[in-house]
Amino acid sequence: MSTSEPRQIRVALDMMGGDDAPDTIVDGALSAALAYDDVSVVLVGPKEIADRLRAGRPGAELLAVVPASESIGMAEDPMAAVRAKRSASVRVAARLVHTGKADGFVSAGSTGATVAAALLTLGRLPGLSRAALAVVVPAAEGPVVLLDAGASPDAGVDVLTQLAVAGSAYAAIRLGLAAPRIGLLSIGEEPGKGDRLRKRAYEALSRLPGINFVGNVEGGDVTGGGRADVVVTDGFTGNVLLKGMEGAVAMATAALGSAIGADPDLQHAADLLAPAFEQAAAAIDPEQHGGAVLVGVKGVAVVAHGSSSALSVCASVRVAADTVRSGVVEAVAAAMSRSASSLG
Amino acid sequence: MSTSEPRQIRVALDMMGGDDAPDTIVDGALSAALAYDDVSVVLVGPKEIADRLRAGRPGAELLAVVPASESIGMAEDPMAAVRAKRSASVRVAARLVHTGKADGFVSAGSTGATVAAALLTLGRLPGLSRAALAVVVPAAEGPVVLLDAGASPDAGVDVLTQLAVAGSAYAAIRLGLAAPRIGLLSIGEEPGKGDRLRKRAYEALSRLPGINFVGNVEGGDVTGGGRADVVVTDGFTGNVLLKGMEGAVAMATAALGSAIGADPDLQHAADLLAPAFEQAAAAIDPEQHGGAVLVGVKGVAVVAHGSSSALSVCASVRVAADTVRSGVVEAVAAAMSRSASSLG
Repeated sequence: MSTSEPRQIRVALDMMGGDDAPDTIVDGALSAALAYDDVSVVLVGPKEIADRLRAGRPGAELLAVVPASESIGMAEDPMAAVRAKRSASVRVAARLVHTGKADGFVSAGSTGATVAAALLTLGRLPGLSRAALAVVVPAAEGPVVLLDAGASPDAGVDVLTQLAVAGSAYAAIRLGLAAPRIGLLSIGEEPGKGDRLRKRAYEALSRLPGINFVGNVEGGDVTGGGRADVVVTDGFTGNVLLKGMEGAVAMATAALGSAIGADPDLQHAADLLAPAFEQAAAAIDPEQHGGAVLVGVKGVAVVAHGSSSALSVCASVRVAADTVRSGVVEAVAAAMSRSASSLG
Repeated sequence: MSTSEPRQIRVALDMMGGDDAPDTIVDGALSAALAYDDVSVVLVGPKEIADRLRAGRPGAELLAVVPASESIGMAEDPMAAVRAKRSASVRVAARLVHTGKADGFVSAGSTGATVAAALLTLGRLPGLSRAALAVVVPAAEGPVVLLDAGASPDAGVDVLTQLAVAGSAYAAIRLGLAAPRIGLLSIGEEPGKGDRLRKRAYEALSRLPGINFVGNVEGGDVTGGGRADVVVTDGFTGNVLLKGMEGAVAMATAALGSAIGADPDLQHAADLLAPAFEQAAAAIDPEQHGGAVLVGVKGVAVVAHGSSSALSVCASVRVAADTVRSGVVEAVAAAMSRSASSLG
């Protein structure tokens, strides 16, 4: 056993973002503080609320608090709100990363506001014109990175090729692969399949040096098939796909429940299978894996699901710390820089 | 009991389209011929193959055969192949509908080729610039029509508004609703959410007379939530979503299987639940519901899944016959005509 302690990773947590904020966020922060020896959690939000919610609870003394008086609602225009509210908790959390007082930040608030705060405060990585969300889906044949899962709805050929380079560097570190297979999300495997954007992107990706482009993949290849390690798409399509997958599993679970109905024998069988069910549901639910990492900004930002439970918030803190430790942001930055210079 | 027999609906079936064609298609045709008293099935393909595959089997005498010597592969450019091959089975099937020798046709071959054959042979409905696939998803709170599920990958604001009108007329008949709720597939419920196309389409749909527009819906609203009866999108996004939903359910099922593992007690419970599982899987799998109906052409065309089993082919024949009987194509045509004149 080594006696050297690992460096503490400091994670700033937006206390005011999320459907059940601030209560659930503070619950998650306390869990993370108790669970992870190598992480320091910094709550960012109104100090009096933080003090009230953690008072007398186990782990309370492990949490630091940085005050932030404002918050941003789901209905606000993200960029305008982030610009206007200098003291918004998500913006203060991003600023802690920018000034080196935290190593990464997490928010379960509006995705748009988190992306806007990261772009405005941390800045964009050179060589990547849009920020993108990377979600790791634990497919049967091995994990698949979906990029962009919803940060930037509009993308052209330039953005899709940049995402291929960024996704390759991201998966190399995150999944430990020497040459991650990059697939272009389309509607048919053949080169000519897809909309106008995908047909042009296919051509560009085929000619792009330094990545292992395997061609078109389909919506089902994010969860299975073993055809690609990274699935590249615009943030609109990626987000529709992710929400659709979550919804389909929820629907199948509900259909199973109603098929079981009130039959006591089937109920008993379902009770026996419940832990296996939970394991299977966890495998499909990105929330359980701690949220999505924002790729393309100068720092570590994790977007947690708006409906995050305390458990998910805790998992998101872990994802942020692991992302810092892995050096993946630096690796993506280096890849974008190499790619930009090789493309002239 | 009435002694009057319902009119026989004649359904032409592309014998050469589908991953397991022609065998599975003939199997499905025989099942449909035996199962449905009110339907006449017409096999379209090489006569010698049809004769060999049905020889001596129950129901063989109920099947008519119309010869077609060519077929279209998955890798061929759909429109070019359909134009070049006048004797392609899918084109001959469409021609039977056009000339009144069949009431509708079904193909499990290349979606693009089926769409091309329908457009070229039957013609486009005035007022709808693109053909679209309508899939009915049996969501928990009631069925939802997804339109376009993959016929036309590129759409502008004009096409999305036309699809809203067509989808409203389609759902009125198919789901029996007086004023179907029309949702625009986007990434967030608020009006400003989405890519550039969706923001402009939202404005146009808000001003469109004669439809019950309920605003943006998300990827998960196709399977649950009860927010819309029709979900309108471009064929690229719709197809990615549909394939993603199928993949997610398959992944959850596989994850459950591996969680159950080799434990005999859990195995026994799983065996007890197997029929409920199958019922739940059927609820999510569009293939089980007999394929998608092509909206926007002058006639009934049903696109069956490429990997259709005989059971699915049989279900597709039922969908085609029901679509003919419902008069939904005529209703969509009338709605498009009204809409075109009201928009000047």
